[in-house]
Amino acid sequence: MNIQLIAEIMGTVAFAISGAMLAIERKMDLFGIVFLGIVTAAGGGFIRDMTLGIVPPAMFSSPMVLPLAILSSLAVCALVAWLYKGSDEELHGERFQWILNFTDAIGLGLFTVAGANTAIDSGYGDYHAFVIFLGMLTGVGGGMFRDVLAGIMPAVLRKHVYACASLVGAICYLGLLCAMPRGYAMFTGAMIVVVIRLLASHYKWNIPRVM
Amino acid sequence: MNIQLIAEIMGTVAFAISGAMLAIERKMDLFGIVFLGIVTAAGGGFIRDMTLGIVPPAMFSSPMVLPLAILSSLAVCALVAWLYKGSDEELHGERFQWILNFTDAIGLGLFTVAGANTAIDSGYGDYHAFVIFLGMLTGVGGGMFRDVLAGIMPAVLRKHVYACASLVGAICYLGLLCAMPRGYAMFTGAMIVVVIRLLASHYKWNIPRVM
Amino acid sequence: MNIQLIAEIMGTVAFAISGAMLAIERKMDLFGIVFLGIVTAAGGGFIRDMTLGIVPPAMFSSPMVLPLAILSSLAVCALVAWLYKGSDEELHGERFQWILNFTDAIGLGLFTVAGANTAIDSGYGDYHAFVIFLGMLTGVGGGMFRDVLAGIMPAVLRKHVYACASLVGAICYLGLLCAMPRGYAMFTGAMIVVVIRLLASHYKWNIPRVM
Repeated sequence: MNIQLIAEIMGTVAFAISGAMLAIERKMDLFGIVFLGIVTAAGGGFIRDMTLGIVPPAMFSSPMVLPLAILSSLAVCALVAWLYKGSDEELHGERFQWILNFTDAIGLGLFTVAGANTAIDSGYGDYHAFVIFLGMLTGVGGGMFRDVLAGIMPAVLRKHVYACASLVGAICYLGLLCAMPRGYAMFTGAMIVVVIRLLASHYKWNIPRVM
Repeated sequence: MNIQLIAEIMGTVAFAISGAMLAIERKMDLFGIVFLGIVTAAGGGFIRDMTLGIVPPAMFSSPMVLPLAILSSLAVCALVAWLYKGSDEELHGERFQWILNFTDAIGLGLFTVAGANTAIDSGYGDYHAFVIFLGMLTGVGGGMFRDVLAGIMPAVLRKHVYACASLVGAICYLGLLCAMPRGYAMFTGAMIVVVIRLLASHYKWNIPRVM
Repeated sequence: MNIQLIAEIMGTVAFAISGAMLAIERKMDLFGIVFLGIVTAAGGGFIRDMTLGIVPPAMFSSPMVLPLAILSSLAVCALVAWLYKGSDEELHGERFQWILNFTDAIGLGLFTVAGANTAIDSGYGDYHAFVIFLGMLTGVGGGMFRDVLAGIMPAVLRKHVYACASLVGAICYLGLLCAMPRGYAMFTGAMIVVVIRLLASHYKWNIPRVM
């Protein structure tokens, strides 16, 4: 079965959840929550497809992306309304933040390898830097739109080791492609991103400064 | 006569006026006012054409857009300089805000249907979600650039029922196309957007929140 | 020899330096410094190529841009670490700001003419407004990304006579092309931008306001 499709579906759900959760935390209305879910889930792929000149972008030509993003966002709404009824401060609680962070890491990992893959499938496999860049752009793009629209500083600027994790994952994926079938390489590449992100969050990793 | 052209011309003038007015309110210099007028009038169509891969974008291939946007901005300058000479606070008065809001609604409505139309004319009529998205993008894009460049939170995020109005108008336009000639459908679709926006402004409509 | 290539190389180095310097001033980590150097150096050309539908963008198809931007950024890091060791406030000193401003002006000038040139070479020479726009976009784009990512208001909005300098340079370049060989026209056009920027900075030029 199509491994690329599976990665995109799981990434879409994960990012839509993170978008909807952030929208709820920011007290947006129902339209805003679904909108932010869609933008987060589809934003990275949208810029990737614009860069590659793919018209219409995958989010409109695929019959899955939009319905999945909308359903995931609505499911988050229902769940939050049911779980946190009345307890406003809970939204800023540790568990809520952890789930937001975790789904974001999953989305980042899956979209990084899926984006690199699309670049290869479009015939640009020989431009290694371009493939890696498109992987990063696809991974980072959705979350960047999400944060800007929610009025917070984008994670890619705020969090140490965010773009870095995506970069390492994309490079590893490209390297692993020479050694194993695509499906395994995608899974391993995405896992690397997730693990780096979670370790970096937990241990508050930093990158050395010049001064 | 070409109904698409008329819609684009009227939308260009309306959005250029709203851009120039906001620039004046924000105390920009003459270059900034004309620049913001052009960006507001041409921004939505520019992203639409980039998404569709149309090169050069309509704002450069059409002989009307740039001159119209520049002339409209300069006319606003002249009018404001003449009307409000010396009375600084007037700029934040109710009438000024109302005109800004009204021209913005007109631009939003006309560009929504014109954008959906361009998508259909480019051969993507069967991707309904894509057509609706391009309508919204064309409608919302110019005002978004305008607000970001003027350093205020984009109306699309600030105002309830802004993107929503564009969404409803684009969907209605697509539905009406099956029932009546294009010209009437465009006019009705644009009117729906304007009416929703003005009612929403006046009655301060809200969309329900999750919690 | 290829004058366009020389302009792009010099512009890349100048903009990468300005990006890396701003990143250091904003206390970013090593990854952030190199990242901001690359974004500043390659950002303008990237949007230009997206607008023109060139895939992959020049920054990935040319073997020079990325290595040059990375090396320039690292060189700035080494130099700053060596020169300013321990003296933190120096970074906000006048000399530091002057170099940042100067490299930014050089980059703006060179990318303006190089961008206009790419538009002509891509066959859009007859759309004068489009050529001028692409010159400005290429010149202004990198610095705009740089400033947004560094969390400061973009120079194009903050500084009087910034986009204006690029505009005048692009128009002059287009005019000079009729009168002299391309190489001289490019050099003169870029010089005009640099001189306007430096004079405007030094004498704090303003553009008249409406009220």
